[in-house]
Amino acid sequence: MRRLVILGSTGSIGTQALDVVRRNSDRLEVVGLAAAQSHELLVGQIREFLPPVVAVTDERAAEELRQALSGLRRVEVIAGADAAERLARDSDADMVVNAMVGAVGLGPTLATLQSGKMLALANKESLIVGGELVMDLVKGEPERLVPVDSEHAALAQCLRGERREDLRRVIITASGGPFRGWKREELARASAKEALVHPTWKMGPKITIDSATLMNKGFEVIEAHYLFGLDYERISVIVHPESLVHGIVEFLDGSLIAQVAASDMRLPIQLALAFPDRLRTGIRALDLTQVGSLTFEALDRETFPAVDLAYRAGRLGATFPAVMNAANEVAVVSFLDGRIPLTAIPEIAARVMEEHEPAKVVSLVTLERADAWARGRTAELIESR
Amino acid sequence: MRRLVILGSTGSIGTQALDVVRRNSDRLEVVGLAAAQSHELLVGQIREFLPPVVAVTDERAAEELRQALSGLRRVEVIAGADAAERLARDSDADMVVNAMVGAVGLGPTLATLQSGKMLALANKESLIVGGELVMDLVKGEPERLVPVDSEHAALAQCLRGERREDLRRVIITASGGPFRGWKREELARASAKEALVHPTWKMGPKITIDSATLMNKGFEVIEAHYLFGLDYERISVIVHPESLVHGIVEFLDGSLIAQVAASDMRLPIQLALAFPDRLRTGIRALDLTQVGSLTFEALDRETFPAVDLAYRAGRLGATFPAVMNAANEVAVVSFLDGRIPLTAIPEIAARVMEEHEPAKVVSLVTLERADAWARGRTAELIESR
Repeated sequence: MRRLVILGSTGSIGTQALDVVRRNSDRLEVVGLAAAQSHELLVGQIREFLPPVVAVTDERAAEELRQALSGLRRVEVIAGADAAERLARDSDADMVVNAMVGAVGLGPTLATLQSGKMLALANKESLIVGGELVMDLVKGEPERLVPVDSEHAALAQCLRGERREDLRRVIITASGGPFRGWKREELARASAKEALVHPTWKMGPKITIDSATLMNKGFEVIEAHYLFGLDYERISVIVHPESLVHGIVEFLDGSLIAQVAASDMRLPIQLALAFPDRLRTGIRALDLTQVGSLTFEALDRETFPAVDLAYRAGRLGATFPAVMNAANEVAVVSFLDGRIPLTAIPEIAARVMEEHEPAKVVSLVTLERADAWARGRTAELIESR
Repeated sequence: MRRLVILGSTGSIGTQALDVVRRNSDRLEVVGLAAAQSHELLVGQIREFLPPVVAVTDERAAEELRQALSGLRRVEVIAGADAAERLARDSDADMVVNAMVGAVGLGPTLATLQSGKMLALANKESLIVGGELVMDLVKGEPERLVPVDSEHAALAQCLRGERREDLRRVIITASGGPFRGWKREELARASAKEALVHPTWKMGPKITIDSATLMNKGFEVIEAHYLFGLDYERISVIVHPESLVHGIVEFLDGSLIAQVAASDMRLPIQLALAFPDRLRTGIRALDLTQVGSLTFEALDRETFPAVDLAYRAGRLGATFPAVMNAANEVAVVSFLDGRIPLTAIPEIAARVMEEHEPAKVVSLVTLERADAWARGRTAELIESR
């Protein structure tokens, strides 16, 4: 029986994680939930899974929740900006599933690992922003950090039973997003509505926009750098529109090993939740004769400069990835509000990175300072357009 | 340093195995060669690799060889129908590469394993005919038997680091051969010349014809049954014309793991010769963006009944696979001689199997008896057409 805390339980990954728990209640148990909003959905989750502790961000939401749950005496509701972090640290869970959105997920990630628990990480910003701090905490016990991303879950499967010295590189696949095949000038006119329709994955709005700019793919490159300890030269991105091959590993002898599965996040989620076991209540395996063909093409690096920007931020290291991430978060919101075109997102992030004076990452404080500076500067740049 | 005996050194797999040795002379050493013919090629191989012992089938060939090698005092030439078997048994090699063609390879396979050596097995008839005897010899030490077939080498890679209880099935890919897409009535008019041109692999004539009838794929199903200890229900065949995905493993959670590589036999050969290591002097890895697409289709079981025939022979067990193999060997020769159409090969094999009175496989003698009966009966049936 694995005891789980799920942070971000009302989001896309959170609800699917609970679906995996529901179908595997003989192995998985929820001992804590945290959510920022979605009152009704959260109340339903609490009534179903009866976690002993629930964390919400603000005190008023907590009070409403306590009233809605007045019949349930065994559920404690805690509140505060650091409630998720406290839940991650103080709970007696075996594993914390971090499905929060944005850089705010880093604190709970560090708290989880500092308190000796396993971390199923869907909050990719934790690694983008705080990769060095995070990896320091799992030195010598990498199995405590399990990726939830479909691409990294795929790469981890391809690497099972292989020797690291035989590895040449890992290849991350990209669907290409809703604007695959578009030219740069067309992309400048893309609407939020168009950007929010992803061809192969159903996800939350932030990551869907990151998938439209391919910034998400850039983030995954940085994640792979930390998770698998690989130089950036040994991480490649190729476009695979069907989103069925999720990751490929290339070995020095010329063998490629690929993981192929339906585009269903419940598979990487359950691979993480039951790690290192495979659960039988799985996704239906693909029938490749029905699929017919799997296609691959090179990335259009000119139309989608966010990928190379992420490579650059990753190679520069220090506070650069945190700054790129913060600028991106602010710019995505502005795009969704109709204030800037899609193509401005990586342009602004690049500009903010250029202006940034980096600092060595010694603690969360360094990162928070860089993050705050980048958010402010991004807002100014958007304002002045 | 691994010391190798190569049986069938002048054939397609044998010469490529020597190429792998040539490029990895710091790890691999030849301590014995056996060949049935190709005098000049064999003399060249001996001069290059200087094996202490060379085995040839007949005494006259041995005498000619001794004369040709008169300058090389350290090379002993042994002769006889059982010379390859004696070499496999008596050599002080670490590993025997069995690249002989046909059921005649079984004796050397058993001798290799009985004498405690590792076996790199390219002679698939060893498992088709004598699967139970062979697997009995590696019970508890399966790593002593390493497949050289690209399909089984692929499946073995996909299974690395995975738990057997998580496995749902293995999927063997078939190029479909030169007659993919043909109808049964067209296939009846296929010439030996057409059948000898394989679309994706360069191989010897026997296996090329087996690839045209897809009997080869049927053999691979039986091999997979023995190598991976799987019921026939858990072994599938799909057509993949590009021959780049060599094997796929399906897990209970819906994940597929696939091995992808150029169609170059040197890769499975070197995977076997250096097992469990991957050699760096490999094949160039595929660039999937250059490949463009990988396609898959269902097997046309009506046009190519040899695959289902092999499933049937495998399920019946006992001496049935040996009989199917013997009938196929004789029928392939007759097809190459222009005496029967390609479609008659599986028809005749099926007929001989129907007439066969099976025996429990207690020793090589049982198998030799079934083999001899099947060859005789097949010849009669061909004669009487």
